[in-house]
Amino acid sequence: MMEQNTKPRVVVVGAGFGGLEAARRLGGADLDVVVIDRRNHHLFQPLLYQVATAALSPADIAAPIRKILRRFRGVRVLLGEVTGIDTVGRKITVDGSELSFDWLVLAVGATHSYFGRPEWERFAPGLKTVEDALEIRRRFLLAFERAEGAKDESERRAAMTFAVVGAGPTGVELAGAMAEIARTVLPGDFRIADPRAARVVLIEGEARVLSAMPEECSVAARRQLEELGVEVVCGSRVTHIDEFGVTAGDLRIEARTVLWAAGVQASPLCALLGRALDRAGRVMVRPDLSIDGDERVFVIGDAAHCIDVRTGAQVPGMAPGALQMGRFVARTIVDETRAAARGFPAPTRSAFVYRDKGALATVGRSRAVADVGGRRFSGFAAWILWALVHVTAIVRFRNRMFVLMGWIWSYLFFDRGARLITGSTKPR
Amino acid sequence: MMEQNTKPRVVVVGAGFGGLEAARRLGGADLDVVVIDRRNHHLFQPLLYQVATAALSPADIAAPIRKILRRFRGVRVLLGEVTGIDTVGRKITVDGSELSFDWLVLAVGATHSYFGRPEWERFAPGLKTVEDALEIRRRFLLAFERAEGAKDESERRAAMTFAVVGAGPTGVELAGAMAEIARTVLPGDFRIADPRAARVVLIEGEARVLSAMPEECSVAARRQLEELGVEVVCGSRVTHIDEFGVTAGDLRIEARTVLWAAGVQASPLCALLGRALDRAGRVMVRPDLSIDGDERVFVIGDAAHCIDVRTGAQVPGMAPGALQMGRFVARTIVDETRAAARGFPAPTRSAFVYRDKGALATVGRSRAVADVGGRRFSGFAAWILWALVHVTAIVRFRNRMFVLMGWIWSYLFFDRGARLITGSTKPR
Repeated sequence: MMEQNTKPRVVVVGAGFGGLEAARRLGGADLDVVVIDRRNHHLFQPLLYQVATAALSPADIAAPIRKILRRFRGVRVLLGEVTGIDTVGRKITVDGSELSFDWLVLAVGATHSYFGRPEWERFAPGLKTVEDALEIRRRFLLAFERAEGAKDESERRAAMTFAVVGAGPTGVELAGAMAEIARTVLPGDFRIADPRAARVVLIEGEARVLSAMPEECSVAARRQLEELGVEVVCGSRVTHIDEFGVTAGDLRIEARTVLWAAGVQASPLCALLGRALDRAGRVMVRPDLSIDGDERVFVIGDAAHCIDVRTGAQVPGMAPGALQMGRFVARTIVDETRAAARGFPAPTRSAFVYRDKGALATVGRSRAVADVGGRRFSGFAAWILWALVHVTAIVRFRNRMFVLMGWIWSYLFFDRGARLITGSTKPR
Repeated sequence: MMEQNTKPRVVVVGAGFGGLEAARRLGGADLDVVVIDRRNHHLFQPLLYQVATAALSPADIAAPIRKILRRFRGVRVLLGEVTGIDTVGRKITVDGSELSFDWLVLAVGATHSYFGRPEWERFAPGLKTVEDALEIRRRFLLAFERAEGAKDESERRAAMTFAVVGAGPTGVELAGAMAEIARTVLPGDFRIADPRAARVVLIEGEARVLSAMPEECSVAARRQLEELGVEVVCGSRVTHIDEFGVTAGDLRIEARTVLWAAGVQASPLCALLGRALDRAGRVMVRPDLSIDGDERVFVIGDAAHCIDVRTGAQVPGMAPGALQMGRFVARTIVDETRAAARGFPAPTRSAFVYRDKGALATVGRSRAVADVGGRRFSGFAAWILWALVHVTAIVRFRNRMFVLMGWIWSYLFFDRGARLITGSTKPR
């Protein structure tokens, strides 16, 4: 498929935060870098819930991988699906063709886990891709249309009841945004249904929302969610989901729209390495992020189960960790190939150390919680910090400008410009 | 489905240019107005090709119908599919429920016609909906990905050959934009394929492009297309399309991507009226736009075959005609219901007169043709006029601002921000 090349070839699978960062760093060195992804675009996932809630368009938070990497002439981008990895023979299979590698960086990310209940997916879509976001947007907007055309009050109530399963950052953001839109954006649009009567229920198995953050943040986030009218149900595990609603413990909620923001499962590609996986399917990596018995194959980001040697804790599956891992393995590869080219022995490898910069989560307009540098705060200041961090982190400037404008517009005019139902207008 | 109401009820089916304009005008009067559409959004179709060519996002050129009509408290919007029209019993069927009416305005528009060859649709999608635009965008962008991964030169050439069938405004705009993107936006992104070598062939059955415009415009448009590298083939009818390409007369073009911008067919709902239709399935309306034998049922816009009594010519199926017809029937209904409420006889009806403001078509960056007020011109001036007219006509201000920004960005930086492939990344 590709011409011969005498430079060492590094194949990076996946162009999420980790893979893209590795590719950029590798791109400056004298290497033959091939980036493979199933999608033509890198997705800024932290803002994906804003596409689902009609504040932004897909193009605002996604950019073509080729465009991001175009200035690195040594980097090639291949749109394709990896179906096989042969670490012994040093080759991977992409859409039926084989591609050899000297080094491999697996940055294939994670998807939702339905805790062994894949049949729930149909009733409760999750939020990982642009298509997921448009599907959630479709269901959310269609719910009010169904309420407007409902034959009786109980049908109308069920149509306007939304359940979100899982109160991590995504669940909190989704629930908050939905409650807010129902109360501020939609009311004037309907004649029979009253969107202000919409019920948003956030269901969490753990004892508190945002359980990965300090307790103060959970308390503040819950208070802010309740201010927006979200009903928060903690310590309750979902036992059943069907097209009419969700059951959690002894609580039954008649909700025509159920969204999934709970479990995480690493990509099935992780299993192709034939190494030990954790319960979520992540590859157990060594301190230098290589896999057991193969120091030229690395796994980074959400696909890796990595223990920070300093703290003994697992590196959290968020963008900063993935970025740092991408940078770390790129440096290892660049240093060792350079040494080899000059006939020097490989430098001793160090262990990956995660630099925890804190965490932020937003709940709605002017509402967020922050845990940064040991300081915990919430409200408007946290929200401004959240907005600054996210708009700064968006990869491409065009998107950054459009995102900012979209936010300013929504903030000032309580409007959501992207309220389009695409795809079928039939409920399911 | 809806409560009783003593005001006369006007049902408007379709929220395109004509239906929406009628609804706005009716909304100010003392009437019970119900607007029914299969979609939750009004689409600014003249800019749809820009979504297909990744310059704009769907939300930039579409706005929720409810939002557009929210200030008219007497107007209700219903998302639903009309499946039956009973002009005698004065009721229509929407998603299985019946809805009575006193007046009916059918503004159901048109779709593509494959000239009796529906099997071509799979190989050559047309451009009428947001989903169509995203499908065309997907095929267009995927073509270069296929070229980059192609096994040999002939496969690469076929992957980068694009055929557009039909050289009306949409075909000209699509072909021009595709050639332009291939030459200005994409080159740096690929390592093996050279997008500048892409071939765009525009095939027209008539003797010239833009055959509805004066000949001078056709000549100018063809020259501008050729400057952009488009191959223009006129006077040649397509006889065969398959997954490998298109045959027109004795010309065979190996093109993996074929787009359809030719025939027009009115919505199948037109046939439900049981009145005479023209060859394209449009309802033959009387000079007052009512249907034969029923003066309270009107057909407007692309669904109507309307002869301008002054010129004897058919009113062209474009936005200005639809808007004028919408306004015209709304005035008729308002005047007659008002007279009836006061016990006066209905005023005599006049005939609809089309005010032709001219025509504009764009070919690419700084390139367009204009025929306005008897003056014909092309180039930068025509392009600026085209941009002004279109940005002024966009319904909602948010969109207008975003569209303008998107254009300015693309113009200055030769960039197309919305280059996302959504849906499957498999060719078909």
